[in-house]
Amino acid sequence: MSPTLTVAPLTAGAFTLFGDVIEAQGASRSINEGYTLRFHDLASLDLGAEQGRPIVSIFRTAPLEQPIILRTMENHPLSSQAFMPLSARPFLIAVAPRGPFDASKLAAFIASPHQGVNIAKGVWHHFNLALGQVSDFLVIDREGSGANLEEITLAQPVTLILPERS
Amino acid sequence: MSPTLTVAPLTAGAFTLFGDVIEAQGASRSINEGYTLRFHDLASLDLGAEQGRPIVSIFRTAPLEQPIILRTMENHPLSSQAFMPLSARPFLIAVAPRGPFDASKLAAFIASPHQGVNIAKGVWHHFNLALGQVSDFLVIDREGSGANLEEITLAQPVTLILPERS
Repeated sequence: MSPTLTVAPLTAGAFTLFGDVIEAQGASRSINEGYTLRFHDLASLDLGAEQGRPIVSIFRTAPLEQPIILRTMENHPLSSQAFMPLSARPFLIAVAPRGPFDASKLAAFIASPHQGVNIAKGVWHHFNLALGQVSDFLVIDREGSGANLEEITLAQPVTLILPERS
Repeated sequence: MSPTLTVAPLTAGAFTLFGDVIEAQGASRSINEGYTLRFHDLASLDLGAEQGRPIVSIFRTAPLEQPIILRTMENHPLSSQAFMPLSARPFLIAVAPRGPFDASKLAAFIASPHQGVNIAKGVWHHFNLALGQVSDFLVIDREGSGANLEEITLAQPVTLILPERS
């Protein structure tokens, strides 16, 4: 039987090892004559290595068929990569710590429609996982020279166990 | 009688002088085993001047009372500033070309819920203008040294004329 991985709610604490949760939580300051609350500097962007520059793109992603099975993972050794949902839809994130890939350390999270993530440089992750419907994401990553993609195929595919009703 | 300014639909062509429209339009490429269309590098981010670094924040902005009256404008001489709507709401952008402020060159746009903007370095703009309801925006701008804010008060406030039903 194929291994399974239970999907957990995304929280900043649970995601610390992998990067940042981008959400309007915690301290904010009032700007713009009081019309705006600014939740400031929510992610450790790391996009400058080897003459890299930050870029903004939109990913329009179709969901995998359910049950969702992880077969590959990737990481970007030179840069972070941030995903912010634009379609008011939850989405999934599957990650493993940086360094030699260790399937026993896989973790999976479900983000609310108001949560994004910034995946830290070198952290293993599955490609963008929409949930239920085609969904748009604002992506902040890097353009530049250097080899910035490592990919592996899992020795055993891993089936995600979603919370009920997702 | 106070001067007025008619709000136009936001298009990339109309906004060229002021920056970029961030939207899933034009060329895209298929990535992620065909599950994702990547609309690549949609904005000229300009965030590195004087040891600047890119940061991501969330602005939670309340709308001005209607009629919406522009009384001040600002610009960031060292950096671009991008706004992407997260609340599936339209919003307003009021701008004037970089250089000495010229009220006769003010322009105002209404963005669809799927359009963001990247305001180019030095371009005069009104602070973030939500429309109708409190709205969240992902903001990509700069942290760093140097004086990065110029503000002026308009000699005559300018009333925005909105499209019907907005």
